[in-house]
Amino acid sequence: MANPNPAFTDAEYRSRIAKTRAAMAKAGIDVLLSSDPSNMAWLTGYDGWSFYVHQGVILGPDGDPIWWGRGIDATGALRTVFMADDHIHGYADIYVQNPEMHPMEDLSQRLIDRGWGGLRLGVEMDNYYFSAAAYQSLLKCNANAEIKDATGLVNWQRAIKSPTEIEYMRRAAGIVEAMHSTIRDLAEPGMKKNDLIAEIYRTSIRGANGHWGDYPAIVPMAPSGMDATAPHLTWDDAPLRTGEPTFFEIAGAYRRYQCPQSRTLFFGKPPQKYQDAEKAVIDATAAVLETAKPGMFCEDIAQAFNSTIARYGFIKDNRCGYAIGISYPPDWGERTM
Amino acid sequence: MANPNPAFTDAEYRSRIAKTRAAMAKAGIDVLLSSDPSNMAWLTGYDGWSFYVHQGVILGPDGDPIWWGRGIDATGALRTVFMADDHIHGYADIYVQNPEMHPMEDLSQRLIDRGWGGLRLGVEMDNYYFSAAAYQSLLKCNANAEIKDATGLVNWQRAIKSPTEIEYMRRAAGIVEAMHSTIRDLAEPGMKKNDLIAEIYRTSIRGANGHWGDYPAIVPMAPSGMDATAPHLTWDDAPLRTGEPTFFEIAGAYRRYQCPQSRTLFFGKPPQKYQDAEKAVIDATAAVLETAKPGMFCEDIAQAFNSTIARYGFIKDNRCGYAIGISYPPDWGERTM
Repeated sequence: MANPNPAFTDAEYRSRIAKTRAAMAKAGIDVLLSSDPSNMAWLTGYDGWSFYVHQGVILGPDGDPIWWGRGIDATGALRTVFMADDHIHGYADIYVQNPEMHPMEDLSQRLIDRGWGGLRLGVEMDNYYFSAAAYQSLLKCNANAEIKDATGLVNWQRAIKSPTEIEYMRRAAGIVEAMHSTIRDLAEPGMKKNDLIAEIYRTSIRGANGHWGDYPAIVPMAPSGMDATAPHLTWDDAPLRTGEPTFFEIAGAYRRYQCPQSRTLFFGKPPQKYQDAEKAVIDATAAVLETAKPGMFCEDIAQAFNSTIARYGFIKDNRCGYAIGISYPPDWGERTM
Repeated sequence: MANPNPAFTDAEYRSRIAKTRAAMAKAGIDVLLSSDPSNMAWLTGYDGWSFYVHQGVILGPDGDPIWWGRGIDATGALRTVFMADDHIHGYADIYVQNPEMHPMEDLSQRLIDRGWGGLRLGVEMDNYYFSAAAYQSLLKCNANAEIKDATGLVNWQRAIKSPTEIEYMRRAAGIVEAMHSTIRDLAEPGMKKNDLIAEIYRTSIRGANGHWGDYPAIVPMAPSGMDATAPHLTWDDAPLRTGEPTFFEIAGAYRRYQCPQSRTLFFGKPPQKYQDAEKAVIDATAAVLETAKPGMFCEDIAQAFNSTIARYGFIKDNRCGYAIGISYPPDWGERTM
């Protein structure tokens, strides 16, 4: 069934698949099973919140990819992927969360039936939603296959964005700007944090500049005061207070493309230490933008950032950035660079 | 550090741990590693969006559980768990998404250092966020351990709810009722779907009856027309239309406790077939509520539901229900009954 409103042309999907097949050949992989919903969407257009059950996109030695998942989600695949309907295979509902049967038994049989049973099978060993039990089931039911680790293989193909992808990311960026405007417009001392988060959510889904908002791959993280020393706390109904900082690490999303941006809110005059940190981060960001040119390495960027904040006496003891693009929960990062 | 606003008493956490240890003994497990964020929260109170990196709660043969995760998230653990600070262990950031080093190397060493290396270690083989690579790393770095499958072990302990948990679920139920009221109040033909979803989100986070809203473990699913034949599609900016049904499968959440409820919206006079389906579902739900008494099995409930809709000529070829409670993405179900 043709998707009446695809995010990308068939040609773009086919060029992604060609890049992926080249990487598979280099890695000695004949058949790839990609379980990461971001990779599934990037390869085929599939878009649905069904990643709580086992599913994947299978890219064999030739032909279009195959969507494989729970039977009731095959209907969602029919309506979102670029491939013909005969490239969509659902498994029976009895496999769902059944300790005595694993969906990978169905997948293995399908690979064997196609004559792909003895081929070199790439799986995403350290990616979301491909469990240890899924791996064990493949080892048992597709015993002739040589199973290879394809973690990050598709993710790396996603690194360089097409013009349409860049346009979608700019739309997501417009949305996160609108979300931060909502914070500036509505936040005031005494306001309950959840009431402010509700308005941020509303803006993120209404969208900006005529573009509707999709759900970000991570919910707003918005801790205040000493809680803000922890990076991944969310919110409660405590009131915003003068003299207490709150950071808002939030993202806008357009058709699953993510643009995160973190900003800190402070009512009153920030202490000198905060003002120093602000100056350090602004200068370090400028140094990063100056350094980020084709041919430079990620380590050059990190060096530019870290050496700048060091001049102000600050240390950041974790990574200073990561790749972004299309994403589903639990992460808006691409987990490559 | 004492959590100033814990969701449950220390005594409640300790009673959960005692139940879990009894199940471990029955399963022949000495040390349990639970990676499911819902299980982690239920056992310790930990609450943060950090499940995109490897982490877990370790329940050894005695003593309080140990929170283990990324170094920068240890700060979030300090502020949310019931245990003393020396029960929180963070690993170095270099392990994060590094193809050459796995966080489970750190975990294995900690188990060995405690003298727990040779014990029977339970892991959640088919649960979220415990990857095939995590399993392989444990096999390699903690080679003396007998690794056993503990999938669902903690989930089953969560089945019977405490009075406080039931109160939290009722608060979540109040929120989802308010979300459906928002739909009834604001939806009209021509309204863009994302604008309606924005209002649903706003209500869900503002909360209801004086209780603030937390984020549901699944985003709103709201397909219209033929898209509604697929269960897990989300939304776009297409306008709502007269004569076209839209279902809203949404949940309210209070302090991570989830209450989902699905309802269908139709502008105009629904076709007879829809009215028949409505009557079938209402009668089947009544039959379920009549059947759901202590001592009955899930199959009795399913039988009550399925036989009632069958009388109207309908068939539902997938499960008719599941357990709910505390939850994090990607699923609001408990994956037990």
